[in-house]
Amino acid sequence: MPRAPNEATDEEALIAEYWAPLAAGFAGAYGLKDDCATIEPPPGHELVVTTDALIEGVHFLPTADAADVGWKALAVNVSDLVAKGATPLAYVMSIALPRLDRIWLANFTTGLAAAQSAFGCPLAGGDTDRTPGPLSVSITAFGSVPKGRMVQRATARPDDLVYVSGTIGDATLGLALRQDPQLRAFWNLDDAACRFLEAKFSRPHPPVALAPALLAYASAAMDVSDGLMKDFARLCRASEVGGRLEAAQVPLSGPAKSVVAASDNWLERLMSGGEDYEILACVPPANAAQFEQRAEQAHTRVTCIGAIDTSAAGIAAIGAAGAPMQFTKTGWDHFSAR
Amino acid sequence: MPRAPNEATDEEALIAEYWAPLAAGFAGAYGLKDDCATIEPPPGHELVVTTDALIEGVHFLPTADAADVGWKALAVNVSDLVAKGATPLAYVMSIALPRLDRIWLANFTTGLAAAQSAFGCPLAGGDTDRTPGPLSVSITAFGSVPKGRMVQRATARPDDLVYVSGTIGDATLGLALRQDPQLRAFWNLDDAACRFLEAKFSRPHPPVALAPALLAYASAAMDVSDGLMKDFARLCRASEVGGRLEAAQVPLSGPAKSVVAASDNWLERLMSGGEDYEILACVPPANAAQFEQRAEQAHTRVTCIGAIDTSAAGIAAIGAAGAPMQFTKTGWDHFSAR
Repeated sequence: MPRAPNEATDEEALIAEYWAPLAAGFAGAYGLKDDCATIEPPPGHELVVTTDALIEGVHFLPTADAADVGWKALAVNVSDLVAKGATPLAYVMSIALPRLDRIWLANFTTGLAAAQSAFGCPLAGGDTDRTPGPLSVSITAFGSVPKGRMVQRATARPDDLVYVSGTIGDATLGLALRQDPQLRAFWNLDDAACRFLEAKFSRPHPPVALAPALLAYASAAMDVSDGLMKDFARLCRASEVGGRLEAAQVPLSGPAKSVVAASDNWLERLMSGGEDYEILACVPPANAAQFEQRAEQAHTRVTCIGAIDTSAAGIAAIGAAGAPMQFTKTGWDHFSAR
Repeated sequence: MPRAPNEATDEEALIAEYWAPLAAGFAGAYGLKDDCATIEPPPGHELVVTTDALIEGVHFLPTADAADVGWKALAVNVSDLVAKGATPLAYVMSIALPRLDRIWLANFTTGLAAAQSAFGCPLAGGDTDRTPGPLSVSITAFGSVPKGRMVQRATARPDDLVYVSGTIGDATLGLALRQDPQLRAFWNLDDAACRFLEAKFSRPHPPVALAPALLAYASAAMDVSDGLMKDFARLCRASEVGGRLEAAQVPLSGPAKSVVAASDNWLERLMSGGEDYEILACVPPANAAQFEQRAEQAHTRVTCIGAIDTSAAGIAAIGAAGAPMQFTKTGWDHFSAR
């Protein structure tokens, strides 16, 4: 049936129902009634921009809880902002839907709304399309830093100490448990431990409160998303330095310690599994005490796990026996044929 | 074979080969070696942000020239910026590839580079993923306007004159010719006319030079991407006004005039076909002469095609006989069940 030209379109109705409530707190979103948003960093600040997509079948399973997908779509972007010392401001979202599934959309927006609220990052605009392919969510997130102060990846300096926030490997274990529930008995994990690990996989919490400490004291930083070893190698390669990690210093949660105690080779897997969404930061030794203090004030755990070492050609992780560990896989690569 | 942790990843190699050259002109891109970019509007300006995706099988055919896809992916975003009176600054791109097709990527970047150069809008950052589904390109583009001056969609005023840039319907004809080459003979079009129409479909040129005139003299504006009638209805609905277009005033190219002369019902189709990427602007009568003059200085054709009419409940297009035209479809909607 022809539609009267004055009637709101289905696309407008969809925007009004699902997306406009997410933009209610942001004046520059114009209620999502315009094609563009306006964003202005505070005086003396510049905008930090990042973009990351989640694709069904690649980054999440078709059976994933839609609320978790919504949470994670924003969290993986906020993680990049935090690593740069940036304070989240807002985001825009381009979403491609294979079908108009209202239950999925309602759950997705619930998770997205929770993430917005947790990270202080409202919706500013977006684009909604139909797709014949997998559902995909591409978010571009904006934060602010004082002008010229973004904490870069390529600026690690000789003798910097290497810190990581939170704990490493929990998400890898959460995914492993989901894929093979029998691991639970093998690892002797209780209900609470399993819930903890699965939540670390499905609802990562990048440490937003750590941004000011990074801005003040870090010489370089990036988030740990594709595996600690791989991301540390990237940081060192970008900075044209070598580096060394002490495996025994890598912070593990209680459940992860149980797993490592139960199965020899899992420490290596935790250090290369990815999806941590923690921060890897290089801190000059002279700043270390202040960095640790500021992190503590922000209630964010940071652990010194190694150092930049320009006498080394690349990176290495020193294992318990004092010898370099061997990795069959250091992390995730979309385009590796190997 | 295990990869040495110090070797650049395939993803980094891909970024270095295809994307980094597109970012060479933009300092805030950090050579694409960081997870984030920095963007700073000029003093006294704020950032205008828009996001639009192109999906294979939805927005372009699998047989489309990759260079055209690259051009169009940026052009459709720049079109939104221009409508807001914004000067393009930079963009970020999230691309999902079903395969690593180097010929496709080389062609795609050629078209994208040409668009960057035409619109003055370099690459600032991005995200490259594998996908099991259709190829998709999601761009978020940034422009700048003096603070608080973005030309909005919802601010049309009573008695504003309604202008459109360029000509309407050429892209619709270009697509129709591609889908049914026999139309060429039916419409009696020569080679040059066909090439012109197909180029209007495959390489839209949003009128970047018109932005200052819009900023100075328009009360409201948006780009025409989903069909003139549909987009005019949206603008009026957002502004809570009615409006009227004179079909006889709608600017048509020479080839489009031939088509309308040859087939009765095509005027209606041109006014609802979409993909024009021209600007629809509301201009107070007191500004009209200056708006036209500034557009002329910018070598951009603008045509007055109607007016905002608050005595009308909705919108109408007045046909040749003086009666409102009937439309079976006013434009494109991803989520219309009808």
